[in-house]
Amino acid sequence: MNQRTLLVNAARGLEPLDLLIKNVRLVNVYTLEVYPVEIGIYGGRIVSVEPPGKVERQTAAQFDGQGRYAIPGMIDTHVHIESSMMSPAGFAAAVLPRGTTTVVTDPHEIGNVLGLRGIRYMLDATSKLPLRVFVQAPSSVPAVPTLETAGAEFGAEEIGEMLDWERVIGLAEVMDYVGVINQSERMQTIIEAAAGRGMVISGHCPEVTGTDLSAYIVGGPLSDHESRTKPELIEKLRKGMTIEGVVSSFNESMTTLAEVVKEFGHVPPNLVLCTDDIYPNDLLRKGHLDEVLRTGIRSGIAPVELVRAATLNGAVRHRLYDLGAIAPGKMADIVLADDLDDFYAAEVFVNGVHVATQGNMCCELEDSRLPIEAENTVHLLRTLTEADFRLKAQIADGYQRQNVLVITPSLRRKLEVRDMLVVDGWIDLSESPDICLAAIFERHGKLGNHALALVSGLGLQEGAAATTVAHDSHNLVIVGRNPVDMALAASRLAELGGGFCSVVEGRVKAELSLPIAGLMSPLRMEEFVPKLDQVNSALRSQGFNFEQPLKGLISLALPVIPAFGMTDLGLVDVALQRIVPEPA
Amino acid sequence: MNQRTLLVNAARGLEPLDLLIKNVRLVNVYTLEVYPVEIGIYGGRIVSVEPPGKVERQTAAQFDGQGRYAIPGMIDTHVHIESSMMSPAGFAAAVLPRGTTTVVTDPHEIGNVLGLRGIRYMLDATSKLPLRVFVQAPSSVPAVPTLETAGAEFGAEEIGEMLDWERVIGLAEVMDYVGVINQSERMQTIIEAAAGRGMVISGHCPEVTGTDLSAYIVGGPLSDHESRTKPELIEKLRKGMTIEGVVSSFNESMTTLAEVVKEFGHVPPNLVLCTDDIYPNDLLRKGHLDEVLRTGIRSGIAPVELVRAATLNGAVRHRLYDLGAIAPGKMADIVLADDLDDFYAAEVFVNGVHVATQGNMCCELEDSRLPIEAENTVHLLRTLTEADFRLKAQIADGYQRQNVLVITPSLRRKLEVRDMLVVDGWIDLSESPDICLAAIFERHGKLGNHALALVSGLGLQEGAAATTVAHDSHNLVIVGRNPVDMALAASRLAELGGGFCSVVEGRVKAELSLPIAGLMSPLRMEEFVPKLDQVNSALRSQGFNFEQPLKGLISLALPVIPAFGMTDLGLVDVALQRIVPEPA
Repeated sequence: MNQRTLLVNAARGLEPLDLLIKNVRLVNVYTLEVYPVEIGIYGGRIVSVEPPGKVERQTAAQFDGQGRYAIPGMIDTHVHIESSMMSPAGFAAAVLPRGTTTVVTDPHEIGNVLGLRGIRYMLDATSKLPLRVFVQAPSSVPAVPTLETAGAEFGAEEIGEMLDWERVIGLAEVMDYVGVINQSERMQTIIEAAAGRGMVISGHCPEVTGTDLSAYIVGGPLSDHESRTKPELIEKLRKGMTIEGVVSSFNESMTTLAEVVKEFGHVPPNLVLCTDDIYPNDLLRKGHLDEVLRTGIRSGIAPVELVRAATLNGAVRHRLYDLGAIAPGKMADIVLADDLDDFYAAEVFVNGVHVATQGNMCCELEDSRLPIEAENTVHLLRTLTEADFRLKAQIADGYQRQNVLVITPSLRRKLEVRDMLVVDGWIDLSESPDICLAAIFERHGKLGNHALALVSGLGLQEGAAATTVAHDSHNLVIVGRNPVDMALAASRLAELGGGFCSVVEGRVKAELSLPIAGLMSPLRMEEFVPKLDQVNSALRSQGFNFEQPLKGLISLALPVIPAFGMTDLGLVDVALQRIVPEPA
Repeated sequence: MNQRTLLVNAARGLEPLDLLIKNVRLVNVYTLEVYPVEIGIYGGRIVSVEPPGKVERQTAAQFDGQGRYAIPGMIDTHVHIESSMMSPAGFAAAVLPRGTTTVVTDPHEIGNVLGLRGIRYMLDATSKLPLRVFVQAPSSVPAVPTLETAGAEFGAEEIGEMLDWERVIGLAEVMDYVGVINQSERMQTIIEAAAGRGMVISGHCPEVTGTDLSAYIVGGPLSDHESRTKPELIEKLRKGMTIEGVVSSFNESMTTLAEVVKEFGHVPPNLVLCTDDIYPNDLLRKGHLDEVLRTGIRSGIAPVELVRAATLNGAVRHRLYDLGAIAPGKMADIVLADDLDDFYAAEVFVNGVHVATQGNMCCELEDSRLPIEAENTVHLLRTLTEADFRLKAQIADGYQRQNVLVITPSLRRKLEVRDMLVVDGWIDLSESPDICLAAIFERHGKLGNHALALVSGLGLQEGAAATTVAHDSHNLVIVGRNPVDMALAASRLAELGGGFCSVVEGRVKAELSLPIAGLMSPLRMEEFVPKLDQVNSALRSQGFNFEQPLKGLISLALPVIPAFGMTDLGLVDVALQRIVPEPA
């Protein structure tokens, strides 16, 4: 008998169920009602949802829901798995117990390092996970072609190739909104690759409003997770964009969205939820989509309506018609929770399999162990030495006007011009205790570009710190006030194949390797986070300002977020999309 | 420049707009707000929606909306165009001025007569209309294979062929719910043709509930427009079915749906609107989707929420992502109305073209004039005579128990057994003034089957009436109490190529030809309806009971609606799906 016939027969009671979940209160995402049901599962799908005790059924197994709420498995509509710093398996093990059962991921980070091989890796490494992973083809590799050097460049041809792969369901956040609005040839052809296939095109357009916003939408992308103000959110919702409400490691929009929802009097159908980038320590301590849900609910959004946004609305947005609801025919992705006002997943089922209980995985989850995971992706053209970490001046001695990238406590990036001491033809930091030197080395084995710049606001007082996680090209970033320590930090990371390290007085104080593309670790969250904490703690003891100093380090580059960033080609003016010249 | 670039430039104001609709109040189907806007249109699409006067624009034309409400063009999610008895052009001219700008049609009726050629005709005849016509492949041709003879039989192969045609967007209402639940091979393979292509599968499942309903859903179809009671509607909405709220010429579900919506406190996202079958006189006098909207609103559903159901929800259901909203990037299908509580379309735009004003078309609308429209599709194997319209008895004289199909005033069909007078070996109606003879002749040039049956409840007292519109196989149906008149009515329709006629005392009293497949007329509504009124009036003067006697005549057959119907093979028990034997 074919599968559909078996399912129909199971629905009718002619085949025994695989599992009957009893004693739960269904959160119905269509009608917004909550009422007691029993959920019958067969072949990974829900085949019956009936009032308790109404239907006697043969079933291979039963599960007592203990009166808990049953909501559909949650759908993260936009996430960069790489930001978890864990392999896809580690990520899955971290988020499934939180109630996230489906993610639509933009493997943008690994794409910038390994190109199509990186995207292929994300698909292969997720093919057997209990987490449902759908991929969007990264639209912005590199994010800003002429302003940074990434490990790959995706044009329409590469995008088209990816879009034809299984489980690739759309074009990921089109960050180059300027290119869309100006109809740059690159953005035109990339969008056409997706539009021509009738696929979903996701967006990213902070502070784009009015006719520019309409131009961006007409140009293709129809979603955004970067809006932070009420007027901007309202305008985008009104214009039919899908707003991906977010709580990430960097910021959140749910509290403002709660005000918007209050004004509308309801959760609009084009509100969905996402996490974008969440660091492993935040995953461990705060959560995943459950934290997005809690934040929205705490801010006043009706829980049942927000559950709809986290499930059904996300499924509709990404055209995942078998997901997003507990109803006959849908995949059996079900989350049980004690409380909707303070939502924590107690039990999680995917495909009808019990995968997590009380915050922990309870099913096998196999690591992928793909060859790419053992590759060292830190390809420097030469060994870096002390001499690479000194900034040459235009004069021999005295003071010279110099650009300084200022990182604010809220991680905004501004530009200042400062008079810097010059000694023997080199910039000298001894009179500038707030300033350190930042160096970025292209690490993809391309031209070996590098750039040096002065940075204020990090707080670093001694030694050096280095990272290969540096959005979006993930080149090798080293900051410090001591060239010897900086050179050591750089060479240590090259040796490790990427990661983070802290060096003081010629010694490595803390390090964390990220062998997968210099972005991800094969360790599980519980092992990984303590090591990450050690790095953050070492950085704090070097004087770093932030509670999570790595955040400051990692976001030095990012040439797509206002107002300034730093790449291997120099300081970037994000709004003008050009390299900033040194002051005259 | 490519089209997308032109659209983006128009959005930015770099290209002049084709049309700017000013001074309207937008009904926003995302946020459910109503607020004043100006709508900019270019290349058939909406490229800007901004507050009045905010943006100065060059524009080829302006339209003053006079402060009216602007709603998206309405989407009829399930309609049989043939029931309008007009050609697709005539149908379009009738419904566009009502605010219906998109229909998803099931060309089931013409499919039963002309097979794939009929479906092809519906596509060809609608290719240049300002009405957007999408087609679903008819799943039920014939509706009940072994119980009636249609002009064609669609199996998985034919369905697959149609599904690959442009503008065919899914599988039409799967009426054979018994076949789905029992997984008949025919239904399995037909559904697989659509499911394998990932296409929308529509349903039809009156009174199917509980585990049978789950089985039906799991089997494939995910919508229904046949539910009439509150519990049934609630169960189907809860189970994730799309409910197609309907006001047709036969019945309606909107008043009951209003109670459901009141109970939920909101219009669920899986409520959409449809008209199913509307006769031309109802189209003229009552309306189309506007009447569905008015009925729902009169019954207490919030107008703006119901507008969302009539537009955005329908677009989502049928995956018509460019339709259903007034927002940047969407097709410029816009309806202006004075009042939402008593909704009548004042102005209608499709593709940015002004197509109707104040209830009348204001753009050219070309008839298709395809060769098939001139074909006579009434293929009888021989000329019918008086002798064909007498019912042979089992005895020579006396009384014989005989099945009688009873049509109730509400058009329900029951079965009674009556003792009938027999004279000279023939059933004699002289003692049974409430009974007439019904004859159905297969008219598709197949085996020439025919069946005779006794019918009560029509009211006919004299003469005969005939039709080639007879759901679902559209065979030739003649009812009467006079064999001579019946034979004349039959031969007159054969001559006309189908339609209706009324015959009394050997003379045709009224007739209406439907030359297109015996189902549709090339006449426009204003010309057609008076002729239809004449036929109805002639039938009423023959004693027919109903305000629209043709309704009773047309629905004699219909072997898919409870409880009994009549086909060319005999009386059909709909629930048991078998021919009813004569009583012992």
